[in-house]
Amino acid sequence: MTAKIRVTVWNEFRHEKNKEEVRRIYPEGMHAVIAGALRRDGGFDVRTATLDEPDHGLGGGVLENTDVLIWWGHTAHQAVSDEIAAAVQKHVLEGMGLILLHSAHGSKPARRLLGTNCTVKWRVAGERERLWNLAPNHPIAAGIGDYFELPHEEMYGERFDIPAPDQLIFVSWFEGGEVFRSGCVFERGHGRIFYFRPGHETYPTLHDASVQRVIVNAARWLAPLRRIDSARSMCVREPLEKIGGAGLPAPCN
Amino acid sequence: MTAKIRVTVWNEFRHEKNKEEVRRIYPEGMHAVIAGALRRDGGFDVRTATLDEPDHGLGGGVLENTDVLIWWGHTAHQAVSDEIAAAVQKHVLEGMGLILLHSAHGSKPARRLLGTNCTVKWRVAGERERLWNLAPNHPIAAGIGDYFELPHEEMYGERFDIPAPDQLIFVSWFEGGEVFRSGCVFERGHGRIFYFRPGHETYPTLHDASVQRVIVNAARWLAPLRRIDSARSMCVREPLEKIGGAGLPAPCN
Amino acid sequence: MTAKIRVTVWNEFRHEKNKEEVRRIYPEGMHAVIAGALRRDGGFDVRTATLDEPDHGLGGGVLENTDVLIWWGHTAHQAVSDEIAAAVQKHVLEGMGLILLHSAHGSKPARRLLGTNCTVKWRVAGERERLWNLAPNHPIAAGIGDYFELPHEEMYGERFDIPAPDQLIFVSWFEGGEVFRSGCVFERGHGRIFYFRPGHETYPTLHDASVQRVIVNAARWLAPLRRIDSARSMCVREPLEKIGGAGLPAPCN
Amino acid sequence: MTAKIRVTVWNEFRHEKNKEEVRRIYPEGMHAVIAGALRRDGGFDVRTATLDEPDHGLGGGVLENTDVLIWWGHTAHQAVSDEIAAAVQKHVLEGMGLILLHSAHGSKPARRLLGTNCTVKWRVAGERERLWNLAPNHPIAAGIGDYFELPHEEMYGERFDIPAPDQLIFVSWFEGGEVFRSGCVFERGHGRIFYFRPGHETYPTLHDASVQRVIVNAARWLAPLRRIDSARSMCVREPLEKIGGAGLPAPCN
Repeated sequence: MTAKIRVTVWNEFRHEKNKEEVRRIYPEGMHAVIAGALRRDGGFDVRTATLDEPDHGLGGGVLENTDVLIWWGHTAHQAVSDEIAAAVQKHVLEGMGLILLHSAHGSKPARRLLGTNCTVKWRVAGERERLWNLAPNHPIAAGIGDYFELPHEEMYGERFDIPAPDQLIFVSWFEGGEVFRSGCVFERGHGRIFYFRPGHETYPTLHDASVQRVIVNAARWLAPLRRIDSARSMCVREPLEKIGGAGLPAPCN
Repeated sequence: MTAKIRVTVWNEFRHEKNKEEVRRIYPEGMHAVIAGALRRDGGFDVRTATLDEPDHGLGGGVLENTDVLIWWGHTAHQAVSDEIAAAVQKHVLEGMGLILLHSAHGSKPARRLLGTNCTVKWRVAGERERLWNLAPNHPIAAGIGDYFELPHEEMYGERFDIPAPDQLIFVSWFEGGEVFRSGCVFERGHGRIFYFRPGHETYPTLHDASVQRVIVNAARWLAPLRRIDSARSMCVREPLEKIGGAGLPAPCN
Repeated sequence: MTAKIRVTVWNEFRHEKNKEEVRRIYPEGMHAVIAGALRRDGGFDVRTATLDEPDHGLGGGVLENTDVLIWWGHTAHQAVSDEIAAAVQKHVLEGMGLILLHSAHGSKPARRLLGTNCTVKWRVAGERERLWNLAPNHPIAAGIGDYFELPHEEMYGERFDIPAPDQLIFVSWFEGGEVFRSGCVFERGHGRIFYFRPGHETYPTLHDASVQRVIVNAARWLAPLRRIDSARSMCVREPLEKIGGAGLPAPCN
Repeated sequence: MTAKIRVTVWNEFRHEKNKEEVRRIYPEGMHAVIAGALRRDGGFDVRTATLDEPDHGLGGGVLENTDVLIWWGHTAHQAVSDEIAAAVQKHVLEGMGLILLHSAHGSKPARRLLGTNCTVKWRVAGERERLWNLAPNHPIAAGIGDYFELPHEEMYGERFDIPAPDQLIFVSWFEGGEVFRSGCVFERGHGRIFYFRPGHETYPTLHDASVQRVIVNAARWLAPLRRIDSARSMCVREPLEKIGGAGLPAPCN
């Protein structure tokens, strides 16, 4: 029996409380819909956490006990404390998987880990998005055909200000004329990050079967073998081979 | 006539003042030796800046007027202000080239731009380093043969905690038994970064002709075509193509 | 004074002879239009070569004296001799630049160098193509804005069966609903390859100013520093360091 | 219950018959040792095939029923028929995993799939090799620490004439002064390739526990989700979106 993968679904969870149009689609919050998809799969231990909980719901050992963290944030990126953002970065670098959904491209964890502005072009016009599958044999794309469509989504357009992804899984076509790298894998430290574009709060995107399939696939694939701490450089005083050169090893200070 | 490339050589410049063994090798500071090599080439307008100047010598429009910034830092990474580190990051993302020398792997600009711990194994034992040239047709390696050697250097060993480089130029062999990715190109935002490993302060590495050649090559290759500001996402209210979908574009707010 | 870059423009040159609609657009052949753009730039020594010449116009030292080869082929890929295809591969691996235009994705040189099927989805329906610029500070994209448009082009759609490009410069949006990686840099051996998608023979694409700009930019950027022959493995009988292990070096045979 | 991964271990199997020093180490052939390691793991259905069998042991549906092919070849690369080499390439592009061991860098399947010369520096001097682990959280490196050592191996040195690997897992240090990219993942078509350097026939390398561990790990990780045929471009006559442009779609011919 394989141990279940421990997933924490983090959501800003403010639109659902403040905007009627969002509450109608996600009455219990977007995190609840994502968590439901993971629970139905059966392979995950799922918990949720939200911005307005103490420590944003990520204190008290939650990150230490999370294999994969899913992050949805939008208007309140700055309300996330630097401490928690640094802790998320630290845990990813040790091996924790991270799925960045939609507007999480601008979140503190995304920008700290990727190092760029992570900016986009955008438009909310209810347009059609078609996500083309560039990696049909990648585990993240399992069960996805040549493409899948979302009838109404926010547009994100290039140039997406990210480092070149380590793997490019999806590229989106938008009805209004733009394209976007919509599924991007980044390896950072000992962990893996998957940016997945869909998920605007005013559309029922997270209820879509293909979107849920990709998130479930990614949660499985991002789970690390183990955690490794690489926060400190390490002095290796005793060389592996004899050194014939100038002087003795210096003390490690 | 091509305009000269404007290079700023930044140095922590403390070892040279505090340690006799360093001052003997670099009496005017390591920045002076690097600046000299660039000036002899003739293709650069060179200035220097050091940690203990106001704004670390990088205020007052210096970064705005720098095509390529060279950075050497070691024991005083934390003495660099967050404001200046953020300004360096901003300018690299807009296009400014950045050469990170030796222990600058742990500097604030490096860690902000790369997002990882950037840690290494290390040992100061005067051992031989041989840098193998993996990209002999890359402009950074122009004039370098199959390899070049440094008789005495600090060892840096893998695992080097960096994102996979966009281009790997040099890999080092160390007498004591380690290897290291010693020449790494990273593209971030609209700028390029070159990490170059050699340059420990207690050895005359920066006087070495091959090391100077690589730095000069890199300074030329990293110079950007132009500066581009991508700090903000951009609302594209008017689509390029007619959208037949649900509802009108939302206002850009 | 910098030496001019020597470019050879190779064209299958059959459509222009067999199809009236193509001859109308390219009366002297597509190669003549490309060569004209390069000549107007002034930085190139340009010659042309076509399929039906002896050795396809590439014998007698032409490849040895070519810095960058531009290749357009479509219906007669199989008519290119294996010898010439192997020679093109050999020269690219030694450093010669190669620009593969449009349907050259299926050419023998492309498939030999990339190793994959290089297949695409396609449709000829006079639809609009918009090429988004993902790398505005890359020399290949110099002078190109956020995007450029072609009013009528053949569609190529993903999944494009190529290795992950070393650099992704353009991604196309098509009116009919597809996307495509339209500008791809690959480094192979000591040479660089640029695949550039536009250029269907029944449209005046190669007369387009942006298309010509990209081709001219690429021809400049792909020119190698030098030619390097790596066709044979090399025995290094004398080690650089003393070996204390078992037995003497074996003879190099 | 998960289905077993079907592995075919292919060996040139000539050194073991012609050279006493090789037969002593691998009396039943190197393929037998590799197959034994896979069988002890329990997760694989293992068969073997050798050069001098009809169709090199790879006809009659063997490749169609192989999830991962392991390839060891050295002096007889040219004795492999072009038909079988093309069939291996075809199956990798459809998804079959391929592990290239040691001197298989120069094999026909390697060169067809990678497109480069794949040449190396080399020396047989019984020297020590230390393989540094650059990707300790990658499934291929599961169970491997910071490095592992082989007391006596053939040296392979850079520059290794390969395309930049999609993932770099190991870099070797050699006693005689060279370095080498010893564990390289390449994605080609719908399949994955792992080049793994160790395995010279005159040393007992393939009996080494770490080497066997890496091969077993790789065989598990390279198994594809499915086979996908991308050998032909596909005409998409009916566009997904309405095209307002010039003329009707052309027939698909």
